[in-house]
Amino acid sequence: MQVDLALIHYPVCNRNREIIGSAVTNLDLHDIARAGRTFGIDNYYIVTPFADQQQLVREILEHWQTGYGAGYNVHRKEALGIIRLCDDVAGLYEEVTAKWRKRPIVLATSAADPENALAYDEARTMILAGEPVLILFGTGWGMAPELLAEVDRLLPPIIGTGNYNHLSVRSAAAIILDRLLGDRC
Amino acid sequence: MQVDLALIHYPVCNRNREIIGSAVTNLDLHDIARAGRTFGIDNYYIVTPFADQQQLVREILEHWQTGYGAGYNVHRKEALGIIRLCDDVAGLYEEVTAKWRKRPIVLATSAADPENALAYDEARTMILAGEPVLILFGTGWGMAPELLAEVDRLLPPIIGTGNYNHLSVRSAAAIILDRLLGDRC
Repeated sequence: MQVDLALIHYPVCNRNREIIGSAVTNLDLHDIARAGRTFGIDNYYIVTPFADQQQLVREILEHWQTGYGAGYNVHRKEALGIIRLCDDVAGLYEEVTAKWRKRPIVLATSAADPENALAYDEARTMILAGEPVLILFGTGWGMAPELLAEVDRLLPPIIGTGNYNHLSVRSAAAIILDRLLGDRC
Repeated sequence: MQVDLALIHYPVCNRNREIIGSAVTNLDLHDIARAGRTFGIDNYYIVTPFADQQQLVREILEHWQTGYGAGYNVHRKEALGIIRLCDDVAGLYEEVTAKWRKRPIVLATSAADPENALAYDEARTMILAGEPVLILFGTGWGMAPELLAEVDRLLPPIIGTGNYNHLSVRSAAAIILDRLLGDRC
């Protein structure tokens, strides 16, 4: 299994659909790393061009990797160990392509329901067949349209029982990992 | 569909398996309310006996229900609208029993893998048949053993691809709601 996740902080939209860079959120690191580790994700990339935000990520990781947190909670150390930093999406693509010696299939989720969405079962089959896959998640009000336009396939939005489609990125990531990689019981 | 969630802050365990009351976490309110609203949950109960913690919950709800947040993000207002406060588990059981005019089937998750766990598919069938169901989630290092012992059935732990079983309660709740109530695509 060759699956990576990336959480994109730039370029994303704000509530007025303007392109911005969003701030890193501590619980986005923890929750998605823990879910990633649960489901066997290779790396979880935090993509931000901002030096102060990268420094914040490094400080959080240091606390849990080698600082007080490392002894306090070894499970957290293990989960956060899959996190890597990237300056931008181009660098992210280079890094995963070098790692797998092949450009992975890049998937993304969008709140809009795309016409040619890749069904979760199809994506699951692709992953189990050994295809490298990189899944992008947006922050803020979602990834910039130009970024979404260049991914290989979009995944369908998470549908519940109505038309409320406003999950946190932490919840959406957990559900998507379970749909793609979870035990079917 | 008659499904409620409850997040238990007392009685729960700390890392040394002692019984404690845990602190309310802002993102537990937001993330689980948004997931609950997505999947058609009736109410999401925050169970804590501590007056200061109840006051914190009220202030957060007020901000998003009638304060600045209500105008800033109507989707958040809608999600947080399903939250209710309860002093303790006994009061919780009374409230949901009165609401559904019947005591619901009480389900809980535990990190341990119980022998007689109710499979997610069976629980899903039960819910779709119209049975009232209350799902308990623990905070801290999990619900107290005496509380787990009195629920009707335990759900299996979320299994990923290995033996790492340390999801956040926010991620676990999202995955469990999707397994029980999500669209099967």
